[in-house]
Amino acid sequence: MPNIVVQKFGGTSLSDTDRFKAVAKIIKDTSEKGKKVVAVVSAMAGETQRLIDLAKEVQEIPDPREYDALISSGEQVSVALLAMTLRNEKVNSKSYTAFQLGLRTDDYHGKARINSIDTKNILKDISADITPVITGFQGINEEGDITTLGRGGSDTSAVALAVALGAEECQIYTDVDGVYTTDPNVYEKAKKIDKLTFEEMLELSSLGAKVLQIRSVEFASKYNMPIRVKSSFTNNEGTLINGEENMEDALISGVTHTSDDAKLTIRKVPDIPGIAAKILDPISSQGIEVDIIIQNVSEDKTTDFTFTVKREKSQETKNILSNLSKEFGGGEIELNEDISKVSLVGVGMKSHAGVAATMFKTLADKNINIEMISTSEIKISVVVKEDLAHEAVKSLHDAFNLEK
Amino acid sequence: MPNIVVQKFGGTSLSDTDRFKAVAKIIKDTSEKGKKVVAVVSAMAGETQRLIDLAKEVQEIPDPREYDALISSGEQVSVALLAMTLRNEKVNSKSYTAFQLGLRTDDYHGKARINSIDTKNILKDISADITPVITGFQGINEEGDITTLGRGGSDTSAVALAVALGAEECQIYTDVDGVYTTDPNVYEKAKKIDKLTFEEMLELSSLGAKVLQIRSVEFASKYNMPIRVKSSFTNNEGTLINGEENMEDALISGVTHTSDDAKLTIRKVPDIPGIAAKILDPISSQGIEVDIIIQNVSEDKTTDFTFTVKREKSQETKNILSNLSKEFGGGEIELNEDISKVSLVGVGMKSHAGVAATMFKTLADKNINIEMISTSEIKISVVVKEDLAHEAVKSLHDAFNLEK
Repeated sequence: MPNIVVQKFGGTSLSDTDRFKAVAKIIKDTSEKGKKVVAVVSAMAGETQRLIDLAKEVQEIPDPREYDALISSGEQVSVALLAMTLRNEKVNSKSYTAFQLGLRTDDYHGKARINSIDTKNILKDISADITPVITGFQGINEEGDITTLGRGGSDTSAVALAVALGAEECQIYTDVDGVYTTDPNVYEKAKKIDKLTFEEMLELSSLGAKVLQIRSVEFASKYNMPIRVKSSFTNNEGTLINGEENMEDALISGVTHTSDDAKLTIRKVPDIPGIAAKILDPISSQGIEVDIIIQNVSEDKTTDFTFTVKREKSQETKNILSNLSKEFGGGEIELNEDISKVSLVGVGMKSHAGVAATMFKTLADKNINIEMISTSEIKISVVVKEDLAHEAVKSLHDAFNLEK
Repeated sequence: MPNIVVQKFGGTSLSDTDRFKAVAKIIKDTSEKGKKVVAVVSAMAGETQRLIDLAKEVQEIPDPREYDALISSGEQVSVALLAMTLRNEKVNSKSYTAFQLGLRTDDYHGKARINSIDTKNILKDISADITPVITGFQGINEEGDITTLGRGGSDTSAVALAVALGAEECQIYTDVDGVYTTDPNVYEKAKKIDKLTFEEMLELSSLGAKVLQIRSVEFASKYNMPIRVKSSFTNNEGTLINGEENMEDALISGVTHTSDDAKLTIRKVPDIPGIAAKILDPISSQGIEVDIIIQNVSEDKTTDFTFTVKREKSQETKNILSNLSKEFGGGEIELNEDISKVSLVGVGMKSHAGVAATMFKTLADKNINIEMISTSEIKISVVVKEDLAHEAVKSLHDAFNLEK
């Protein structure tokens, strides 16, 4: 239905009963504007962590089925409390858990994927002017076991519901005003972005991950469901993320940096066809994601092969490479954890030449050495020393006038 | 199956993860003795109260459906945590909520009654040496809404499961060793009772209510399911409650007193047939339970009518009586809240004359005046001034040698 709006409220928006009252007011105000609100909620702030801590105390490696049953209970508390808060505000409301709704997932505990949502009860409620309040984060599998969708999974629940209901928008309420041009803790000139494309949001993941789960953006992009990231504290306009590109799109929408990457180099491997696959296969088969990859052209029939992985996987990767190097008769392995990936993102750069040149010149002027470069249609990433990352972000933020 | 034992653990037995480990050990030990354990658990100590407090903060008169959804979440935490603790002890285990099990109730939120239990999954688990851990206190109605069975309802869940499974015994684990001859806080000579009949347990409700829900005893009596009240802290033999009476049954099993009763007298009502019903109907129609009732024989065509109610209902009852008295042309209403009902309970008194005489003489010797008397086959109750109740209990405990 065109006038349905899904509103999702995260844990920080539900930290105590005063916050529940604030959230109820947002829902009431939206309803009074003629919208049909379907609410999706997370556990109260701190609750999921409390349950995880309890689990750790009783079982070293938690049983996945029981772990999901445990940590999904926090959402049940939230839906009931919010339905009661709404009723106290004279908004007729009804809470649903995943099993009551019929939100079915596959069997992967802790990272389940949604298979189907039964919207029958919700549509009935909406017709009867009842506001449904639905547990995020959880589902049930075919056996009726409770599953969870992974950290931040409530965002995906919300988008999936919005898609299933044909909602006009999925609003993700959090404790910040939206997505910013860069981390405001790094650069005080960071500015809220009004509008992003799905692609930009995906490329800005390291900024975006703080406000919404990236998987939910992929989901929204697939079904072209607009997402609006808003603050439940200010209820300002927030950041709208949708599939629309247009002429006025900014050249650059944001600049990000990472602090959890590591760079590995394997020296003097034989420069033969298929060598990249031979090196990367054993790494990805361990579930380690490789990010930027560089292979230099060689003169002496050997090559240096360099790539980045998440820092927590760096030692494991190094061990795999050491074994490979012995096998190939390659050289030594270098591991460097003192790096940061700084990225410029913007759909505008598709149609503008010179973004890369400006980026490299800006960094050169600051004497920031570029160790690796990777480009896509709407993103340019460079790897620099980690202690220079903040300076790089600030200088690029200035160079591309992002505070405007 | 004959070797199934249902073990129910209350909140005080599950106050922290160390207690979960102690409970897991009890289950493991029982299993190693060849029994098939089915566990039923309450919420962790304090958890239900925490949820009730949250509810009060958001809605003045909580919506019954949402209130049940809220307060039943604590049991879900307990079952998952206990299943994990058992698995850590190498006991294969699986948790069930009411909806996963199929524990169906009627629609009375907050005081639902169990209609049926689907034992299919439990029996399958038992055959596969899996210990099922089941949420007490909760059920689902026909619409799939969560219901709760009332305070202490987990005991009823446990007995109902034991009946449905044809278990050999339902063990209620709590924080005391069993049922005592009187409240140990009132008289230090109070002694644990080894064996009681269902009828005695029901009559001892004011003692028993501290260790198990009286409704569960009615349920067990109806289906002749033995209950054993035990401490999860000591795991001593506890008190066995069953349907067997035998020659060696003690004359008196216990002595109780109340501290929440009030006595009301309506003076000079016309002594006509049906007057008792005319007085009591408007009271019971307000949901007020009347306990001991005395109507004196009159000489002047009027009578004094006296009865007791719970103290919290005394003012409401007085108002009803005042209106009635005006209607009848009766006399004034006296309310006395300074009373206590002291009761002797024992199946043995069925076959022994003289219990009442000994009781009255004992109290007389202590100069304790008896204001009302009520008798049944296995109970004699007297109403005395409240500040004399403890002395009455002690002297009766001595007179009938209950410490032996």
